[in-house]
Amino acid sequence: MDSPTVEAGMNLEFLRPLVKRAETRIVLLVVDGLGGLPEAEGGPTELERARTPNLDDLARRGICGLHEPVGAGITPGSGPSHLALFGYDPIRYQLGRGVLEALGIDFDLGPDDVAARGNFCTVDASGKITDRRAGRIGTDKNRDLCGLLRKVAVPGVQVFVEPVKEHRFVLVLRGRGLSGDISDTDPQSVGKTPLDPVAHTREAEPTAKMVAEFVSRARDILAGHHPANMIVLRGFSKRPAWPTFGDIFGLKAAAIAAYPMYRGLAKLLGMKTLATGEEIADEFATLERHWDEYDFFYVHVKKSDSAGEDGDFERKVRVIEEVDAQIPRLMRLRPDVIVVTGDHSTPAALKMHSWNPVPVLLWSRYCRPDSVERFSERDCLAGGLGPRFPATDIMPLALANALRLEKFGA
Amino acid sequence: MDSPTVEAGMNLEFLRPLVKRAETRIVLLVVDGLGGLPEAEGGPTELERARTPNLDDLARRGICGLHEPVGAGITPGSGPSHLALFGYDPIRYQLGRGVLEALGIDFDLGPDDVAARGNFCTVDASGKITDRRAGRIGTDKNRDLCGLLRKVAVPGVQVFVEPVKEHRFVLVLRGRGLSGDISDTDPQSVGKTPLDPVAHTREAEPTAKMVAEFVSRARDILAGHHPANMIVLRGFSKRPAWPTFGDIFGLKAAAIAAYPMYRGLAKLLGMKTLATGEEIADEFATLERHWDEYDFFYVHVKKSDSAGEDGDFERKVRVIEEVDAQIPRLMRLRPDVIVVTGDHSTPAALKMHSWNPVPVLLWSRYCRPDSVERFSERDCLAGGLGPRFPATDIMPLALANALRLEKFGA
Repeated sequence: MDSPTVEAGMNLEFLRPLVKRAETRIVLLVVDGLGGLPEAEGGPTELERARTPNLDDLARRGICGLHEPVGAGITPGSGPSHLALFGYDPIRYQLGRGVLEALGIDFDLGPDDVAARGNFCTVDASGKITDRRAGRIGTDKNRDLCGLLRKVAVPGVQVFVEPVKEHRFVLVLRGRGLSGDISDTDPQSVGKTPLDPVAHTREAEPTAKMVAEFVSRARDILAGHHPANMIVLRGFSKRPAWPTFGDIFGLKAAAIAAYPMYRGLAKLLGMKTLATGEEIADEFATLERHWDEYDFFYVHVKKSDSAGEDGDFERKVRVIEEVDAQIPRLMRLRPDVIVVTGDHSTPAALKMHSWNPVPVLLWSRYCRPDSVERFSERDCLAGGLGPRFPATDIMPLALANALRLEKFGA
Repeated sequence: MDSPTVEAGMNLEFLRPLVKRAETRIVLLVVDGLGGLPEAEGGPTELERARTPNLDDLARRGICGLHEPVGAGITPGSGPSHLALFGYDPIRYQLGRGVLEALGIDFDLGPDDVAARGNFCTVDASGKITDRRAGRIGTDKNRDLCGLLRKVAVPGVQVFVEPVKEHRFVLVLRGRGLSGDISDTDPQSVGKTPLDPVAHTREAEPTAKMVAEFVSRARDILAGHHPANMIVLRGFSKRPAWPTFGDIFGLKAAAIAAYPMYRGLAKLLGMKTLATGEEIADEFATLERHWDEYDFFYVHVKKSDSAGEDGDFERKVRVIEEVDAQIPRLMRLRPDVIVVTGDHSTPAALKMHSWNPVPVLLWSRYCRPDSVERFSERDCLAGGLGPRFPATDIMPLALANALRLEKFGA
């Protein structure tokens, strides 16, 4: 599927002409999976349990609330939830599966590349799939097989085959006039043979032929590599031609993220990604180092989400406390606007992303503080931003507080 | 008018692919007209006056708020307000007047039936209407006259004439190729003659002729039955071809409602309606009896609304207390998600439906409790669901809490 050819969303179309330049700096600190749930009935959430004197101080001086990334009851993936934080309506702006997978390894997708998510799989003598994940082969084996597949020459295009984890890889075709409007070869069930890639439009026919050629060659190469003796592909898509974050908001934006997925996403929107280390403190050191070069910083902390996904309540508490300890460094930089939030909730009690609204704290000289005294889910309910506001409100609020929006109308 | 040929709304189109199956059960308890107003300035509302220890306990352990069925300031009828609770945008999904009237007597409308609301009326010697309600004849008289009209044979269709209350009845034509795209015969004022039914489209012409034939025969039959010596018809409409509740939400749904209107509405959306008694306790007994057979139960309590409409504050308080007393029976069934709310407010002070937001309480293991300690209008204002959220949020929230929605995007 081609990524939907979306115009700038209603919000963005409205906002863009109001944007003005200013000498102010905004920091959007995303603590991934920040929102939580009580471990036991009546108990505190992860954030409520954490000792966060610095965030509490910001909450006291700022304005708080809870956002919903996509809508009531909707549990978002990291792609849609980040798009929403960045001001892009996540229902209007949807990324294809192949593009998301390429972002996940921070692959530098060109505007004409077509990406697909690939699985190594097992087929029997008749060609029918017996295991859609090839027994979850190890990542090392995956890397070797990708090395073999990379040697496939398809006339007219350059072929990239990049390992992800276990049985997963990314296929990228680079060439002219390619289209992502091609059906999956993955039948999504065992007992069936992989499907032929079918072009949904006339324009996609040459690309479908190239994919078929690649798959046919891959079959030959993998024949002796049971259980990974075949591949299936899905989510053919191109990098969308969306307006960039910088163009819309008039910001020189940089992303500081230890994890490739988030760098990939930021890059897709035209942000500059800054090299950083694995630790939270490394990310704040990167922020300090580049402070004078940008006027918008997206700082992403991954470990809170990982702890939530692992169901590790206490570890998530500690990650939040680790973030809190970095806040004084941030304050010393004298930013004009700080937003601290998560992209979604990842309660340890659920061991997964959830639909529960996400605490938000916005601080600026002009934010009009509310009565919230602590940064927590329960306290933010009484905040001035409201208990369930759309995440896409965050960017206009940040810009306004940075005195970067003109008056609307006379 | 034919019911608008509406596609599945944006919300529903978005939600449907996210729905997954689970072994969880949801109960939506609708206390009709639940929201109220103080009887005297500074006093409590009906719900605030009521002693509701069980609902308060659920509110303490759950998440609360107030919904708006249609929008700010809009007082809804029971049709739109229930559609909103069931997740159907009530502005997008509108029922014709004839269909609503047929639902009101739980008439089993077929997909090709055309229904209209009828009034017996009084005409003078020149045929001009002198009373649009025929002096509000008694329901017994109405029943006799419907018996006479039922004998009218119109070639090509089966004719149903069903009494409602006083001067009101339902006309249903059953046949092939019928259309509801016909103008009212009711001029909506006295001093005018009833209008001819006019087809708005070519397809509706045969139906318009049949209606004209029926009206002409009715005039002859009723000639000697002054004051009910004529009829007027309005709101010609067909049962809409909407996606069913079960299809959209992946739920096996049952309705428990003592009043025909609510059974009719539930049936229209494809819910199974369960036989039950007149009393609130009967409805909970029905719930217990069928607990294992369904995964969604809509339980409707009518008496709170009737008390409000009668302006009887104390009676409405007692109905709410009667509902509260049944909550322990509900809890013993161990539902996964409970939603308690009203379809709209019916303050005794107004003696009618009103626009005031309606208290909502949602309880589940994963709802993230707020600080609300009592189930009341004032307490719900501080709840985690917000003080004025769209009623159409309730179904996605209930599904999410029942772990019945997939993640959106990767």
